[in-house]
Amino acid sequence: MIAVLKHGASPERTEHLINWLKEQNLGVQVSQGESHTVLGLIGDTANVDMEMIQSLDIVETVTRVSDPFKAVNRKFHPDDSTIRVGEAAIGGGHFGLIAGPCSVENEAQITYVANRVKQAGANFLRGGAFKPRTSPYDFQGLGAEGIRLLLEAKKATGLPIVTELMDIRNIDLFQDVDVIQVGARNTQNFDMLKELGKTKKPILLKRGLAGTIKELLMSAEYIMASGNENVILCERGIRTYESTYTRNTLDLSAVPVLKNLTHLPVVVDPSHGTGHTYLVEPMALAAVAAGADGLMIEVHNDPTHALCDGAQSQTPDEFAATARKIFRIREAMQG
Amino acid sequence: MIAVLKHGASPERTEHLINWLKEQNLGVQVSQGESHTVLGLIGDTANVDMEMIQSLDIVETVTRVSDPFKAVNRKFHPDDSTIRVGEAAIGGGHFGLIAGPCSVENEAQITYVANRVKQAGANFLRGGAFKPRTSPYDFQGLGAEGIRLLLEAKKATGLPIVTELMDIRNIDLFQDVDVIQVGARNTQNFDMLKELGKTKKPILLKRGLAGTIKELLMSAEYIMASGNENVILCERGIRTYESTYTRNTLDLSAVPVLKNLTHLPVVVDPSHGTGHTYLVEPMALAAVAAGADGLMIEVHNDPTHALCDGAQSQTPDEFAATARKIFRIREAMQG
Amino acid sequence: MIAVLKHGASPERTEHLINWLKEQNLGVQVSQGESHTVLGLIGDTANVDMEMIQSLDIVETVTRVSDPFKAVNRKFHPDDSTIRVGEAAIGGGHFGLIAGPCSVENEAQITYVANRVKQAGANFLRGGAFKPRTSPYDFQGLGAEGIRLLLEAKKATGLPIVTELMDIRNIDLFQDVDVIQVGARNTQNFDMLKELGKTKKPILLKRGLAGTIKELLMSAEYIMASGNENVILCERGIRTYESTYTRNTLDLSAVPVLKNLTHLPVVVDPSHGTGHTYLVEPMALAAVAAGADGLMIEVHNDPTHALCDGAQSQTPDEFAATARKIFRIREAMQG
Amino acid sequence: MIAVLKHGASPERTEHLINWLKEQNLGVQVSQGESHTVLGLIGDTANVDMEMIQSLDIVETVTRVSDPFKAVNRKFHPDDSTIRVGEAAIGGGHFGLIAGPCSVENEAQITYVANRVKQAGANFLRGGAFKPRTSPYDFQGLGAEGIRLLLEAKKATGLPIVTELMDIRNIDLFQDVDVIQVGARNTQNFDMLKELGKTKKPILLKRGLAGTIKELLMSAEYIMASGNENVILCERGIRTYESTYTRNTLDLSAVPVLKNLTHLPVVVDPSHGTGHTYLVEPMALAAVAAGADGLMIEVHNDPTHALCDGAQSQTPDEFAATARKIFRIREAMQG
Repeated sequence: MIAVLKHGASPERTEHLINWLKEQNLGVQVSQGESHTVLGLIGDTANVDMEMIQSLDIVETVTRVSDPFKAVNRKFHPDDSTIRVGEAAIGGGHFGLIAGPCSVENEAQITYVANRVKQAGANFLRGGAFKPRTSPYDFQGLGAEGIRLLLEAKKATGLPIVTELMDIRNIDLFQDVDVIQVGARNTQNFDMLKELGKTKKPILLKRGLAGTIKELLMSAEYIMASGNENVILCERGIRTYESTYTRNTLDLSAVPVLKNLTHLPVVVDPSHGTGHTYLVEPMALAAVAAGADGLMIEVHNDPTHALCDGAQSQTPDEFAATARKIFRIREAMQG
Repeated sequence: MIAVLKHGASPERTEHLINWLKEQNLGVQVSQGESHTVLGLIGDTANVDMEMIQSLDIVETVTRVSDPFKAVNRKFHPDDSTIRVGEAAIGGGHFGLIAGPCSVENEAQITYVANRVKQAGANFLRGGAFKPRTSPYDFQGLGAEGIRLLLEAKKATGLPIVTELMDIRNIDLFQDVDVIQVGARNTQNFDMLKELGKTKKPILLKRGLAGTIKELLMSAEYIMASGNENVILCERGIRTYESTYTRNTLDLSAVPVLKNLTHLPVVVDPSHGTGHTYLVEPMALAAVAAGADGLMIEVHNDPTHALCDGAQSQTPDEFAATARKIFRIREAMQG
Repeated sequence: MIAVLKHGASPERTEHLINWLKEQNLGVQVSQGESHTVLGLIGDTANVDMEMIQSLDIVETVTRVSDPFKAVNRKFHPDDSTIRVGEAAIGGGHFGLIAGPCSVENEAQITYVANRVKQAGANFLRGGAFKPRTSPYDFQGLGAEGIRLLLEAKKATGLPIVTELMDIRNIDLFQDVDVIQVGARNTQNFDMLKELGKTKKPILLKRGLAGTIKELLMSAEYIMASGNENVILCERGIRTYESTYTRNTLDLSAVPVLKNLTHLPVVVDPSHGTGHTYLVEPMALAAVAAGADGLMIEVHNDPTHALCDGAQSQTPDEFAATARKIFRIREAMQG
Repeated sequence: MIAVLKHGASPERTEHLINWLKEQNLGVQVSQGESHTVLGLIGDTANVDMEMIQSLDIVETVTRVSDPFKAVNRKFHPDDSTIRVGEAAIGGGHFGLIAGPCSVENEAQITYVANRVKQAGANFLRGGAFKPRTSPYDFQGLGAEGIRLLLEAKKATGLPIVTELMDIRNIDLFQDVDVIQVGARNTQNFDMLKELGKTKKPILLKRGLAGTIKELLMSAEYIMASGNENVILCERGIRTYESTYTRNTLDLSAVPVLKNLTHLPVVVDPSHGTGHTYLVEPMALAAVAAGADGLMIEVHNDPTHALCDGAQSQTPDEFAATARKIFRIREAMQG
């Protein structure tokens, strides 16, 4: 970390600051410039509060030289991480195609969809049992029963299942779930992240509704710092001023940015990321071309009667057509 | 709710839709126009999924005529709500001046600050015991001990206390807390909101990091729908592209917008809303002029040594000067 | 357009509004519902001011059923438009690969880069002669001399040239330019758009710095309404809160959205759209997979000595590698 | 400016960079740290391209220590600037109350409104002659005739007039206009700014649609660097994701931020900044409390028949009531 002091900072105040920094167990290297004094801070600066230092009246600017994240940092772990679930895998060259309905509605629905997406090439089944809904009057999901039905569909197809945990008090219900999803509204639910860090289960961590890339990485850091290394990052669209034609703005540049910063796998959710069925395929293909390690796509047997998010679901036939193109782009990328 | 069908929608598809809407217990009024068919939906449309209807290929547009929120709606409750805590009150003409440090650090600190802000005119003491921090390596608050210290400061000054709950599993620690704060990262933690709806304690609900006004109201609706009518709304700045000179963009227009839509009291947090001490006073005064029912201001005995958010804290002296101006603007408003 | 009147709107006020609407040459169809009166407006509603009607105190909501744009609308022109310049073409299945330096610096530079990008497969040469710079102290481009040098490079390579017009008073200098670019800061310079509508030259119209998709289409409408049908739309990144790792957020979902709404060709600028060389290739490939009709890529012989935007320029070698992958993805898309 | 080189930057590359910086007429001070080399750049760094340096592969971070703006900078001009027009003035303790219709429609209208706002305490008359409209089919203003009518209203009331210039080719029509307004879509029309820098007329420069504070200052710098010191800055709302209840998000924190950074006067436009009449008064009062040097408010004799922006206009009576409260808040501020 580099702190530049203001022109004219008094020697007393400067010394006072240097002493305080040393009390924080930092090495301080002072460079006396013509107009400014520059302090180089050495040591574990990840837990130094930049904003506090910035607030001091003798400080002009503070710049972080090293990243605030460690366990997720590619610098300290250059190889791609691969997250394995049974025979399926995501990352390190393995592509995860996660598909299924927004909400689990009944056994026939989830098993039918599971079979269809498996045939089309999906290697994970998604389905919501606990649903975060903006309105208390909207359908809130089947809860524990939804998880039971997902496990039936897993039994029928062999596909590992991905489903969202909304309340840490329900963690026991997730014992047989293969991948626990943390939704966009819980990306910074730090107590939940710490708790998930104590399991060994793969966590699919969605970027916040209007979360920064750095915040996503710091949330992954919470999980890893608590002991769980199995984290998959998921870009799912961010909130911008453009909301007439898309629900969110899918930030595909996050894919190569994340691949550069971290060794963790990165998947993209073009369904929530756009909110419209007709945009799912082009954005899915674009995500693959941008280098994503996987996709998460909503598929419903009857989108116009879906209990939630029908507007963005593909039919099984549409998904099969999209999957074929996905694999073609994957090939072209490797060719 | 008004649905406009596309030019050329077939009679069969149209009838199919009308029947489906009736199955949802809605009255449907059909107006056959020259180029478009318009459906007026009557009944409890708050739980109709607009996006689902919008997604149907025969539907051109759907417009909500009635608001999606009920309990918080001023239409059904025209008078201002007043939230009372002992002798203090917010709303309905009562001004809440909530002040105190970002984090509780030790007994001397919190009691000293409590005494000073009380002298300056504050009628609530704030202080963080559980702190949501972006980094797992940052100071996370004193936890239960922090609450104990806040209660000591309450005993010493008589000021009711406001502090944040981050994990619903800790709710028992909050039995003697006067106002429970829901932070910006938990505004859409729906399971927590439902649980808080079962208490009778006043809840200070912050707007999400990049939350819309409608989402804030829907989150308040979650609490009220679960049985707790004591909700205070808090504007605390939203995330925008402008982040060079302010941490967030304080959206003061949210104050008159909310006062128009809901009967609940609205307070403003200019400290988190700006991130810089020198902006706290002008934004506090502006909030009062915009019609806010209260303010929440960070005050620290020694901001440059604060364990968090020192950059935006006032000293007790600065706060006293600001408080005097706040009361002067309040008077001018009433004059 | 559909206007829903408030519950309890008086008959006099309602009649007053209906009469006023008729004065605007609109047909008005009244549907009396149980709780609301609905007015259907028929005729040329593109120039009815929705916000004005919305502001009337008897009006609950106003919804536009038809789009506010006409000439650019795919509904009235279902086939893709193809913009032709000599042998090169963009749209209707033709891919435009536009490459060259941010700024023209001297004859050797522009001719060298032109030759290299042509060899790699580019069919248009870009280069800035007039440069919009945030600071008056930054390099502002070579001006007329820059255009002269571009024309030399065109002579040497046969590539048609694309360059930006910043001040309509300079239009005469652009007589031999093949495609006139309107930059992101001039997307809503309406007088310039009207003037460009009087030429027949292809216009490459960039989306505004924080422009909506609708605004981009309305600006294209300005050009077409003035008589010029040769408009190419360009996505170049939008301004969002995420600015740590990317300069802008490249909104690739704009590609399929625009392809759905308009018949005009859509190209993508991944260089300005990301601001970093390492992101150009993945975003270029993603744009192709999303269905873009072309790309605009900055290429500089010596990026670290470029007079502007070196941070986002590829070298000729990097561009050649990217171009090969672009063509491979194009093939996979068609396969 | 401070550049921190990456750990492991080779001595050759480092020397190469230092030599290049010296060629730019900068002094370079090298501090060899334990893990990083820090370069301090001395001299006129306002025209050094930070992004270019940042792009070099041996550079970790670049930080600007001094501001990129000079003429507008309060550091070099500590006292408030006062812009005077006849007897009226804005800045340096003088409050500018600018009022009038969005568009000039006819002589009776503009003269009537001018008289009414003058009685209420306005000291400037605003009115649009050239109107920037998103749609080419919307009313575009009366043009030259509009300016003639404004001058009639000036003759009748003595109020100096403020009106917008959209096309620099029309500058001659503005000879008798007192204050030339640059609209939000032209804030970065750099050629227009340079041209306006050659006049001595006061320029009211609006912040861009989604403009940053720094960009606003740099645009003012364009005008001042070209020789015109009479610049008034205007906050008019910024584009954010929140657009359901307000047209823009009025960024009142920009007022104290700008007052801190620059000596130029700052006014606020709560009419465009909110888009709704009922929000104009609370936001006007809030702007005064935040320290604004003036306000720009739309007033129309018959808002529901206004040719544009009626939704946000006050009636003369409403304006008079608001003006009384404005003056009361001003007093309370000084008291």
